[in-house]
Amino acid sequence: MNGTAEAGASASSPPSLRAAAEEVNFVFLEGVDVPAAVSTGASSSSPTARQAPADGAFSSWTNVLLRRSDESHTWRHRLAHALRHLGIPQPVPYLTRLVSFLTLLGVVAALFIFLIDLAVHGIEAARNQLRQLVHPALGFGLYLLSAVALCLLSTFWCATLSKEAEGSGLPQMKSILSGFYDRMKDALKVRVLFAKALGLICAIGGGLPVGWEGPNVHISCIIAHQLYRIPFFRELKRDRSLRLQTLAAACAVGLASSFGAPVGGVLYSIETMASFYLVQSFWKGVMCALAGAMIYDLLYTTPLVEAFEGTTFDPQDVGRVQIFLYAALGVLMGLLGALFICCVRGIYEMRMRRYPGTNRYFLVGAVATVSALVQYPVRLFALDPRAAINDLFRAVPLKMTDNFGWIELVSLPIVKFLLVAVSLGLPLPAGIFIPSFLIGAGCGRLFGEVLRLVFGAAVVPGTYAVVGAAAFTAGVTRALSCSVIIFEVTGQLRHMVPVLVAVLLAVIVGNAFNRSLYDTLVLMKQLPYMPILRRDRRPDMTVEEVMRRIDSTPCLFPDLGAADVQRLLEKFPDQPMLPVTDRSGVLLGAVSRRVLVARCQEARDGRSNGTDEVAFTMLDASEGDEDIDGAMEEARVGAPSSAPLADLTYRKQQQQGGRRSEGVVLPCDVSPLQVADYTLLRQLHFMFVMLMPHAAYVTKQGRLVGIVQREDLVQCGAVPES
Amino acid sequence: MNGTAEAGASASSPPSLRAAAEEVNFVFLEGVDVPAAVSTGASSSSPTARQAPADGAFSSWTNVLLRRSDESHTWRHRLAHALRHLGIPQPVPYLTRLVSFLTLLGVVAALFIFLIDLAVHGIEAARNQLRQLVHPALGFGLYLLSAVALCLLSTFWCATLSKEAEGSGLPQMKSILSGFYDRMKDALKVRVLFAKALGLICAIGGGLPVGWEGPNVHISCIIAHQLYRIPFFRELKRDRSLRLQTLAAACAVGLASSFGAPVGGVLYSIETMASFYLVQSFWKGVMCALAGAMIYDLLYTTPLVEAFEGTTFDPQDVGRVQIFLYAALGVLMGLLGALFICCVRGIYEMRMRRYPGTNRYFLVGAVATVSALVQYPVRLFALDPRAAINDLFRAVPLKMTDNFGWIELVSLPIVKFLLVAVSLGLPLPAGIFIPSFLIGAGCGRLFGEVLRLVFGAAVVPGTYAVVGAAAFTAGVTRALSCSVIIFEVTGQLRHMVPVLVAVLLAVIVGNAFNRSLYDTLVLMKQLPYMPILRRDRRPDMTVEEVMRRIDSTPCLFPDLGAADVQRLLEKFPDQPMLPVTDRSGVLLGAVSRRVLVARCQEARDGRSNGTDEVAFTMLDASEGDEDIDGAMEEARVGAPSSAPLADLTYRKQQQQGGRRSEGVVLPCDVSPLQVADYTLLRQLHFMFVMLMPHAAYVTKQGRLVGIVQREDLVQCGAVPES
Repeated sequence: MNGTAEAGASASSPPSLRAAAEEVNFVFLEGVDVPAAVSTGASSSSPTARQAPADGAFSSWTNVLLRRSDESHTWRHRLAHALRHLGIPQPVPYLTRLVSFLTLLGVVAALFIFLIDLAVHGIEAARNQLRQLVHPALGFGLYLLSAVALCLLSTFWCATLSKEAEGSGLPQMKSILSGFYDRMKDALKVRVLFAKALGLICAIGGGLPVGWEGPNVHISCIIAHQLYRIPFFRELKRDRSLRLQTLAAACAVGLASSFGAPVGGVLYSIETMASFYLVQSFWKGVMCALAGAMIYDLLYTTPLVEAFEGTTFDPQDVGRVQIFLYAALGVLMGLLGALFICCVRGIYEMRMRRYPGTNRYFLVGAVATVSALVQYPVRLFALDPRAAINDLFRAVPLKMTDNFGWIELVSLPIVKFLLVAVSLGLPLPAGIFIPSFLIGAGCGRLFGEVLRLVFGAAVVPGTYAVVGAAAFTAGVTRALSCSVIIFEVTGQLRHMVPVLVAVLLAVIVGNAFNRSLYDTLVLMKQLPYMPILRRDRRPDMTVEEVMRRIDSTPCLFPDLGAADVQRLLEKFPDQPMLPVTDRSGVLLGAVSRRVLVARCQEARDGRSNGTDEVAFTMLDASEGDEDIDGAMEEARVGAPSSAPLADLTYRKQQQQGGRRSEGVVLPCDVSPLQVADYTLLRQLHFMFVMLMPHAAYVTKQGRLVGIVQREDLVQCGAVPES
Repeated sequence: MNGTAEAGASASSPPSLRAAAEEVNFVFLEGVDVPAAVSTGASSSSPTARQAPADGAFSSWTNVLLRRSDESHTWRHRLAHALRHLGIPQPVPYLTRLVSFLTLLGVVAALFIFLIDLAVHGIEAARNQLRQLVHPALGFGLYLLSAVALCLLSTFWCATLSKEAEGSGLPQMKSILSGFYDRMKDALKVRVLFAKALGLICAIGGGLPVGWEGPNVHISCIIAHQLYRIPFFRELKRDRSLRLQTLAAACAVGLASSFGAPVGGVLYSIETMASFYLVQSFWKGVMCALAGAMIYDLLYTTPLVEAFEGTTFDPQDVGRVQIFLYAALGVLMGLLGALFICCVRGIYEMRMRRYPGTNRYFLVGAVATVSALVQYPVRLFALDPRAAINDLFRAVPLKMTDNFGWIELVSLPIVKFLLVAVSLGLPLPAGIFIPSFLIGAGCGRLFGEVLRLVFGAAVVPGTYAVVGAAAFTAGVTRALSCSVIIFEVTGQLRHMVPVLVAVLLAVIVGNAFNRSLYDTLVLMKQLPYMPILRRDRRPDMTVEEVMRRIDSTPCLFPDLGAADVQRLLEKFPDQPMLPVTDRSGVLLGAVSRRVLVARCQEARDGRSNGTDEVAFTMLDASEGDEDIDGAMEEARVGAPSSAPLADLTYRKQQQQGGRRSEGVVLPCDVSPLQVADYTLLRQLHFMFVMLMPHAAYVTKQGRLVGIVQREDLVQCGAVPES
């Protein structure tokens, strides 16, 4: 088969060229089989042709490359392979593992989130009781003191356990899901889970107006990542694409369990975290979120915690003529959302610029004090946000509720807007969704009440609160699925059209001013990300302008000595994958740096054996060691999803001739992403987003001329930096 | 820039190879600039170096390739380009066009769909009146006669206007959206629109139990395609990715306007038609669907047509303990859904095998007669499906409704199941969703009524009807978003958890037996499609096993004569794009066949001028003709989304020397998708799904050795055929 292709390719070339091509092949073959001969300048009739004739060697090399090495070489895998060949299904089919994983993840995450909520509720109840039982002044003192103490404790957990737990957590997950798993792995450790949970309980318990859906997403992802450790599920982690899909499902369950909104949770996680979505992973998200939502459904009907109540609007409550008023509210909320993002960023950057070294405890203590002082006097402010939102959503007119009046209604959005904008930059766990929801509900209710004064009883302010909540949250997060979440939270769809119109307008208006809060947080925290290429920015930029040039021998050859490899590793300290080429520069594959370093170390250690000449060569690696599993997995991380891996064997060459199979196996991704040097940058960007490779190798007439890593796309000027 | 890269690449090669590489380059340069010199075997010191020195020529060639040619060369585009350079925004920004397009599309499609519904309603009302006014026997005769006449008329429209209008239409759109736009363009013509609309009105009016959501999707897509013709929107069509996104939005509005379900419509269109989804196109779908849903909201509250009524279940109607019963219903519906698909396929294949040449009128007439005979006696059967579904969804117990009793309830699912399975294979427009909905509602209601007999009044059969409708439809279409559609149709979310559980189970159970009905229809009608690679089927297959080999000169060289080009075109009649390589086989780009044929024709026509030596060469093409717009657009269709296009100039070479710029411009995609020959097939499949290229070019050590087209992936054994 290879022979025909070769013959075909060379038949069409002119004689001189064909000769050249043959020579290239020959050199290449020599490189494969008898490396030392090439370096000493041996002719094509080298004596080594004896033990491995050119053609045979070539095809055997190709066979080695073709050998599928996705499975590891343990007896268990061999058994499974044999069984599969006989048509007998494997002991535990893949689907069973996946379904059990998703269900378990949904249940565990929902229970964990419920426990956090229970703790928060306990603290809130205790503090409110404290406030009512004792003397007012003493009560206030205790309230203030407990607020500051809890908030300090919250940031303490983050400082001691893990700083990764600070902030929403959703931006980190966004970074992981857009392909930066390797660099963000630390955010998925168990200690982060505890820091996040404890910090969240203290922060919300301490009265800071922060949300819990972002931290919940983070917590769910950590739980998923820890569940992979169970041997039964280990297989799921190995497949990179599946790992990302299960992490996306974890994000969905985090959101679903925060609101009891399975569909909205899945959609919201898609919109805020992904650039594209595989339809085959939709059911995974829904299944996981549904398991979580069923637990929510069971637990949140107990009076142990606060929960959203359904609304009970009549059909005529949502007037069809009022659609323009709802639309106006949507536009207004889009503007306010954009302003909110500016405020969050402005406050954070001002603090960083003017007071860069401020002590975290001082900072948190000050905000906690202000928050307690401002929120103490008004009952609506101090309420659990869900209870406050329930009040605002009610169809009952203002004068008939005893929970709030005009003063509370006017001050609520203003106070919360500022407090939340400040709190989001603090070094403690802090979500965005619920505070936005509350601010939006407040604004909407106020808007509705004003309209009611103008237009009379046809206006039901509660519906404006619902629309406002969805629209403001959409203006902040730029997610259309805020509408679906609000449908699920309110349990009604009477207000579908107004909510959708307002949400759509809020997103469009908001996008005209700045990017979503999550994107802004990614930038603020300098997380790695894959930005969106804008249509109007340098559309004619090519890959060549961005790539890192291959100036001189930066590639591994099959016959490179150990010392050369060592030099190479030192010269390119930031390349996690090193390309392998033949002598003429034609790309053969890529090898993981970590594996290479380990092998170099081994080679150095073995130098005492007599010779220090070490060379890479291709060899059938079925006799490879067990260690290959880990090494291959390592290599696959950076490869486009489920890339084939061949084995480069790396053996000690003590003398010429005598093929030894004592070599150590070096896993090699043999089909890395390859693009031409004049490919448009936006095409490459699309490939990076869709295929999530670690790096792309740029070739010019078949030869490797450069490498583009994910980071290069961010660093080049073609992507919007703010 | 090029110089450095070149030097770097060659510095690492051994001397002999470097010489070879230089020679390759030289040949290549010659090929570019003085094609004739190469064919006569000129040395590197050829006289042609005079008018274009090697190095300069190389970089100028590269510059030509780099020249961005996405925009066309009309004065309008140049003006826009100049304005953009000066920082002045273009007269009409892209977003304005897009938003107006989406809104217009939504409104027009919804109105068109409403008009169809109005016509159907008129026919139904007339026929029902006919039945009641006259003598029973005469009434029956007229009813039967009108049914047969209308159904025959329906298939007549399809036969005379366009056969593309037959069937659901959704499978065709699926085919288009998965990248087969070129081959399916005919399905988007105006005559298909009329055939589909008239055929649909007659078929439903004639009493056949077919749905309208698939035809509505098709109609919306045709409307979108025709709206592109408006000059204001023409720009949107040019961008391939945007065209697909707007077509996806059209699918969403087709569904949304069929049920008044904007969110469900968007999700359903994603799930049934896409393999992956760009998040940035989500808002486009929602916006378009929302415009449609607002029109629906306005029009369907009029008594002119039937509409879905909201349900009014109490919270306690959906018992939490009954979740296992709902789950059992879901499993049952999954099984029935799979059986339904088997029946549809079985009936169609039996007819094709046993009675291949049956006259379409005989076939339709027979089915229409049976349908009228069976459905006439029972009022529930003859009702508009929406009215029947409303009846079945009601929370009122069986004995208290006067619309149906046990007999109707038992016979409804059986009769409709068989009738729908037969009707779906007929040569007339026929949707799937609404009939499935009705069958599911019937089954669910029956299941609920039986449970009520067993468990007593705690069971509300209406909720089972709702769950059954969603689950059976999900079992047939394998779309989880059937649940969202049912939430929007019923206007309630009380039954969220039961519906989701049942739908999820139905999809999983159904998938264990066969593929979705839409996928089955794609196979039955032999439409081009990009199938899903299954995990367990030959995971180690490589690209090499699938590709079409390049055996002998199948590629265009820059210096190929017109006669050679002609031979090439004849030899490879099925290649819509032809690869361009240099003499040594290194891939340079790809050229559209249609453009090439046209240019060959021109060259032949111009032969009388004296010489018949025609050669391709690269030239700056800014003096190219206006025709380039169309030609480039043509080339871009097959290229990965928004590929860069360079221009290959194809000029008449009357004698050596003397650079002429009278040439005709040949647009060339200079960065087609390139993969190594040992790439795993499943990797390539992923690239085809995500990047939607027309073809992938397989290289081995930089040289082109094969081509893989979309069709090859379908034809190779690695994909499930049934």
